[in-house]
Amino acid sequence: MKKGQLVVISGPSGAGKGSIYAKVIERTGMKRSVSVTTRQPRPGEVEGVNYFFRTEEEYQHMIAAGEFLETAAVYHNYYGTPKAPVFENLDNGFDVLFEVDVHGAKSIKTKYPEAVLIFVMTPDFETLEARLRGRGTENETSLKTRLGAARRELSQYEMFDYIVFNDDLEQAVQEVLDIVDAEKRRIKNNVRIIKSLLNKE
Amino acid sequence: MKKGQLVVISGPSGAGKGSIYAKVIERTGMKRSVSVTTRQPRPGEVEGVNYFFRTEEEYQHMIAAGEFLETAAVYHNYYGTPKAPVFENLDNGFDVLFEVDVHGAKSIKTKYPEAVLIFVMTPDFETLEARLRGRGTENETSLKTRLGAARRELSQYEMFDYIVFNDDLEQAVQEVLDIVDAEKRRIKNNVRIIKSLLNKE
Repeated sequence: MKKGQLVVISGPSGAGKGSIYAKVIERTGMKRSVSVTTRQPRPGEVEGVNYFFRTEEEYQHMIAAGEFLETAAVYHNYYGTPKAPVFENLDNGFDVLFEVDVHGAKSIKTKYPEAVLIFVMTPDFETLEARLRGRGTENETSLKTRLGAARRELSQYEMFDYIVFNDDLEQAVQEVLDIVDAEKRRIKNNVRIIKSLLNKE
Repeated sequence: MKKGQLVVISGPSGAGKGSIYAKVIERTGMKRSVSVTTRQPRPGEVEGVNYFFRTEEEYQHMIAAGEFLETAAVYHNYYGTPKAPVFENLDNGFDVLFEVDVHGAKSIKTKYPEAVLIFVMTPDFETLEARLRGRGTENETSLKTRLGAARRELSQYEMFDYIVFNDDLEQAVQEVLDIVDAEKRRIKNNVRIIKSLLNKE
């Protein structure tokens, strides 16, 4: 069976990676990854659907055992992507789609170099600033912090395979779908089938 | 201005690269390349449209001057792809599409490593044999020659970037279009714009 591909959507906060991610999941059979977290479940959240809920001790054991593709601390809670279910999906031929920050994307690429990394960016930083302001959730200080972080993130572009400029959401989604389809046609993802054709008499 | 991309469709005789090429040209604004040849013009053929017609002496001068991306001899006539008009189109932002045999594809990749090489193959060699027989133009000897050549061509797969299995023509055309679109989103084709975003205050 042909292995599935792991596609990672990343980029700065405010560029729209979450919206693109949701639409691509909706239109394809791609699997999402369920994160592990140490935070308390909120009402209605279901174990194994929204998150895998673990104690901090269990989580530290998982880190020590190398069970994460990426892990991060956010406000005293941990969030991480467990390897096992992702690799199981890939082995069963399912494509898996992630939406993570640039730090997480880097960690995933290090641990799974076959991952396809897509950087989602606004057409320019002015647009990013306008979108962040439009959310109405940022004060001037946090806005500056986010814009500075965005610059540092984009400056790591060499780590990524693709960049999608999210000017129009529909077009950006289509571009991600094109990338996913084109990657399936890459020689390196077809070596097994090519060799089997060549070896058959 | 963003440079155009050079896309090369190649593969064995009978796999359908010509049909895919024609449809992709028809549906996109991609430029075709006009070959140089030493053969005599046929009735109705127009200089600069069908071919650039040159004497053998002129052709040899062009070879010596390194003016070809690829050149080949077919039944005592030469056929070649001149660099200058191709590079002019690419510099002006136009994408250029080629359909050449595997030998020509190799030559192009050597002289212009940024070229995107797509190998067009039937789902298997049995299908290739059936298609070649269906043409009704091959005797058993030439059929065996072509199938042997096809195997040698596919065994050079590592030189290519993509492989498209032409089972259904429409789908194969769509896959080539996806590849062309996805390539525009590759990081290496967007370094200039990324750097200009980063350098702008």
